[in-house]
Amino acid sequence: MKKGRLFVVSGPSGTGKGTIISRVMERLENVSLSISATTRAPRAGDVDGVDYYFLTEEEFIKRADEGRFLEHACVHGYYYGTPLDPVTETVESGRDMILEIDVQGAMKVKEKYNEGVYIFILPPSMKVLRERLTGRGTDAPDVIERRMNNALGEIAYIDRYDYGVVNDDLDSAAEQVLDIIKAEHCRVLDGEADKIISEYGEEN
Amino acid sequence: MKKGRLFVVSGPSGTGKGTIISRVMERLENVSLSISATTRAPRAGDVDGVDYYFLTEEEFIKRADEGRFLEHACVHGYYYGTPLDPVTETVESGRDMILEIDVQGAMKVKEKYNEGVYIFILPPSMKVLRERLTGRGTDAPDVIERRMNNALGEIAYIDRYDYGVVNDDLDSAAEQVLDIIKAEHCRVLDGEADKIISEYGEEN
Repeated sequence: MKKGRLFVVSGPSGTGKGTIISRVMERLENVSLSISATTRAPRAGDVDGVDYYFLTEEEFIKRADEGRFLEHACVHGYYYGTPLDPVTETVESGRDMILEIDVQGAMKVKEKYNEGVYIFILPPSMKVLRERLTGRGTDAPDVIERRMNNALGEIAYIDRYDYGVVNDDLDSAAEQVLDIIKAEHCRVLDGEADKIISEYGEEN
Repeated sequence: MKKGRLFVVSGPSGTGKGTIISRVMERLENVSLSISATTRAPRAGDVDGVDYYFLTEEEFIKRADEGRFLEHACVHGYYYGTPLDPVTETVESGRDMILEIDVQGAMKVKEKYNEGVYIFILPPSMKVLRERLTGRGTDAPDVIERRMNNALGEIAYIDRYDYGVVNDDLDSAAEQVLDIIKAEHCRVLDGEADKIISEYGEEN
């Protein structure tokens, strides 16, 4: 059986990567979404193992020491991390896993998991990004400025990604991510070639 | 405008790569098929620029010396080659080009044109390949044996290809090649990242 793959999706705030991922998840059967682990307390409505894996600080640090996170960080006194075990289990079972994560996190994941596929969602233009952020009506002008600057800082990492998808139109952007996922199932991975060659050879 | 790409397709005799390519060509608008150049005389029905580019030996050698072939070889006293100019022109104009070529040829193309996408069409199994070759009814048993051995020799190069597509079912194999072509249009190519970064940066 062919292994699944890890698809790491990043992109500036306001590019609609969450919506694209939802569309992609609806269209595919053999795919799971990566769930973060955290030491912060569950809020009303939070379901353990659905919204987050809620861990004690002791347990989190233990797992981090055991190398069981693809990346982790401490934000406002709480730990957040991407657990490695679900990725390994999912991929080994032949399913794909999608991980939505910011550029800093993705770069750490890439150090540990280079066989992942790295997809960057781009806004059609900075002008459109500004319009989208303003249109939300949730952010103060200074927050929007910060997001715009962050966006440029993130786009500067595009060369570390395998694919860039411009979210001009939601349907076609989701379609492109689906094309990438399907194409990557045909990728000849390092170490896989020998297996293919010996399988055909033995059979002859 | 985004450049087109060169898709190099190889695979053992009997894997149906020609049929897959025909299907793909029917489904895409912005794609051309690479046409070989040769010094052999046109046969009845051969159209210059459609079946082959027919060149004199003098002209062929001149172009070869000028580096205007992605690869070329001499077979039974005639030269055959893949012209570089049509690839460059097609790709620059934003169209894709598909080149069907054997593994030896593909490896030479790869040396000169690493930004190509290399796709290998695999038979579902050696058993099925033998059945297909026998089923054609055109090859003597010793020819079939030779083709089977050649097939294994070609499959041994799978690690030099980006993608492997198993032609189990013609429709799904053609679909997979289409997925690969569409996905590769999102590929972040070397040197393209700087252009993207400066475009978004200037605009801000």
